[in-house]
Amino acid sequence: MIKLGILGYGNLGRGVENAVKINPDTELCAIFTRRNPSDVKVNSNTKVVSVDEIEEWKNKIDVLILCGGSAVDLPVQTPKYAKLFNVIDSFDTHAKIPEHYKNVDTSAKSASKTAIISVGWDPGLFSLNRMYANAILPDGCDYTFWGRGVSQGHSDAIRRIEGVKDARQYTVPVEEALIQARSGKNPQLTTRQKHKRECYVVLKEGADAKRVESEIVNMPNYFADYDTTVNFISEEELKKNHSAIPHGGFVLRSGKTSPNTNHIIEYSLKLDSNPEFTSSVLIAYARAALRLNKEGVYGCKTVFDVAPAYLSPKTNEELISTML
Amino acid sequence: MIKLGILGYGNLGRGVENAVKINPDTELCAIFTRRNPSDVKVNSNTKVVSVDEIEEWKNKIDVLILCGGSAVDLPVQTPKYAKLFNVIDSFDTHAKIPEHYKNVDTSAKSASKTAIISVGWDPGLFSLNRMYANAILPDGCDYTFWGRGVSQGHSDAIRRIEGVKDARQYTVPVEEALIQARSGKNPQLTTRQKHKRECYVVLKEGADAKRVESEIVNMPNYFADYDTTVNFISEEELKKNHSAIPHGGFVLRSGKTSPNTNHIIEYSLKLDSNPEFTSSVLIAYARAALRLNKEGVYGCKTVFDVAPAYLSPKTNEELISTML
Repeated sequence: MIKLGILGYGNLGRGVENAVKINPDTELCAIFTRRNPSDVKVNSNTKVVSVDEIEEWKNKIDVLILCGGSAVDLPVQTPKYAKLFNVIDSFDTHAKIPEHYKNVDTSAKSASKTAIISVGWDPGLFSLNRMYANAILPDGCDYTFWGRGVSQGHSDAIRRIEGVKDARQYTVPVEEALIQARSGKNPQLTTRQKHKRECYVVLKEGADAKRVESEIVNMPNYFADYDTTVNFISEEELKKNHSAIPHGGFVLRSGKTSPNTNHIIEYSLKLDSNPEFTSSVLIAYARAALRLNKEGVYGCKTVFDVAPAYLSPKTNEELISTML
Repeated sequence: MIKLGILGYGNLGRGVENAVKINPDTELCAIFTRRNPSDVKVNSNTKVVSVDEIEEWKNKIDVLILCGGSAVDLPVQTPKYAKLFNVIDSFDTHAKIPEHYKNVDTSAKSASKTAIISVGWDPGLFSLNRMYANAILPDGCDYTFWGRGVSQGHSDAIRRIEGVKDARQYTVPVEEALIQARSGKNPQLTTRQKHKRECYVVLKEGADAKRVESEIVNMPNYFADYDTTVNFISEEELKKNHSAIPHGGFVLRSGKTSPNTNHIIEYSLKLDSNPEFTSSVLIAYARAALRLNKEGVYGCKTVFDVAPAYLSPKTNEELISTML
C-alpha cells in the first residue's frame, strides 16, 4: 500500500481523496490543513491534522501530495516539504517552472527525497504529448487548444468587476481553427482565431449591464484579444447549469517526414471534472515518485523524466501482455 | 552524432534512411543487406554492406535498427544482433512479444547492450497511450481503432486468391462506433461494429469476379467478421490512386473518477506514410537506447521503460522551458 498525505483541502484535495478510492494500492493517511482541523469536514474517514504537526508524520507517509495554489502556496510549500517527504505538486505557472524546479531539486536532494512537479494535464499530459510528438516529428508545428472548459482565473477576473455578483467563464476552442490545424497545411493561427470566450454573469441588483459587458470584453490580457460573448443570467440558472467544472483540450503536432508526406499526432481530453481528473494524474505520479525514491533516484523530476511503467500498478509482465 | 546502421532495406529501411535526414544529431553509417550489396540501390550516399560483414562494424555503430519482418526475420535477428549492437526493432506479433522479449533480454544482457523492442505506433505510441490512460483512469474501458489505412497483411491475403493480379485493402474505422466510444457510455463494441474493410482488386484476364468477391468476403479471420466491400478496378487505377501507404487510428479510454463523472482520453494518428512515420519513431528510440546504454541500463526494454526525455535531442532545461 502506498501511504499518501494531502496538504490543502480545496477542489484538488477533495479530488485526491476521491481518487484514492479507485486506486486500491493507495491509502490516504492524513489530510493536513492550515485551518483548525475540527472545522474541516472531509468526505472519508481520513484524519485531519494541523499542518503544524506535519513533521511528526515524516515516517508515516510515503508521498505528500501538495494541493495548494501555484501563485502563493506551492513556491513555498514544495521546496519546504521536499525536505521531509517525497512530494508531488501541480505547479502551473509556466514561466516560473525553471526557478521552482531548482528550489525543489536542492531541497529534495538534501534529504534524499523524490519530488515530481507540474503534474496534471497542462502542464502534465499535454506537455508529454508535445514532447513525444516533437521528438518523433522534428519538422513541424505545434498547436494547443484548451476547452471547452471553465477557466477559474477568467471567472475570478469577471467577479472583480463592480456590479458582478457571480460569474463563470468558458474557454472554447474555435472549430474552424481545429480543422485548419488538422489539415496538414501548418497554418499560423492568432489568439483570436484559436479560442473564444463565453461568459455567464449574475449582476448585483441595480448594476449597469452595458457597462459590465463593456468592461469584460475590453479587459486587457483576459478578454480584449478574443471574441467574447457575455450572457446575463439569474443566480438560480448559474447554480443549475454552470456549477460543474468541466475542461479539456487538444494538443496537435503536424509534421513532415519528406516534402509531400505529412502526419498529424493529436491528443485530446474531455473532462467532466478538471480537479477530479488532475487528482487522478497526481496519484499515478505519486506511485512513480515512491518507486523512484526506492531506486535511489532523488531530487526534482518532471513528467519528462518518469518512465511510463512507473505510473502503473501492473507488473512489467502484465503491461507487456495486456497493453503493448 | 548518433551512428546508426540499418539491417534490411524495404519500406521501413528506406523510411529510416529518410528520417536520418531530418534528425541532425543522427548519421547513417551503413545499410546491411542479405542481398548482393551491388544490387541494392539506395537513396543516400550510405555504404551498402553484406550482412556477412556486420561483425566488423561492432565498434563503428551506436545503434542498429532492425527493419525486417516480424514473422521470420526479427525473432532471429534481434536476439542475434543484440549480442553485437544496441538494437531497436518494431516486432509487432502481439502474442509472441513476451517470448521475444525474453530472448532479446538474455542476449543484450550477456553483451552489456541495450535493446528496445516493439517500437512504432502499434505496438509503440498506441501502447504508451493505453498504458498512461489506464494508470490515470483505472475504472474504464479501452478502445483501439485502426485506419483509415492500408493493411499489408489483408492486401497480401487477397493477392493469394486465384485470379487476382493485385490488390489493396483499407481498414476503416466505423464513424458511428467512434462516436459511441466517445460518448462516455462505455459501450461494448463488436469487431463488425468497429471496423469495415474496403478492397480494391485488379483481376487477371478471364478471372471470375463473382467467385473472387465471394472468396474475399467469406475469408475467415481476415474478412468474414467484417462488412467488406470489394471494388474491381484497372491496374492503372490501382497505381494512380492506391500506391500510397497511409494509416493511423485512434486510442480511447473512457473512465469514471466518481459515479457521474466521466473523462475521455483520446490519442489519434493520421499518417500519410505508415513506414515513414514508423521510422521516425524508431529513430527517436534509437537515441534513447544509446543514452540508456551509456548509463549502464542493459537488456531488453519496451516503450514503457523509457522516460520520455530520452527520446528528445533537447536538454532537460530546454524541455522544461519550451514544452512543459
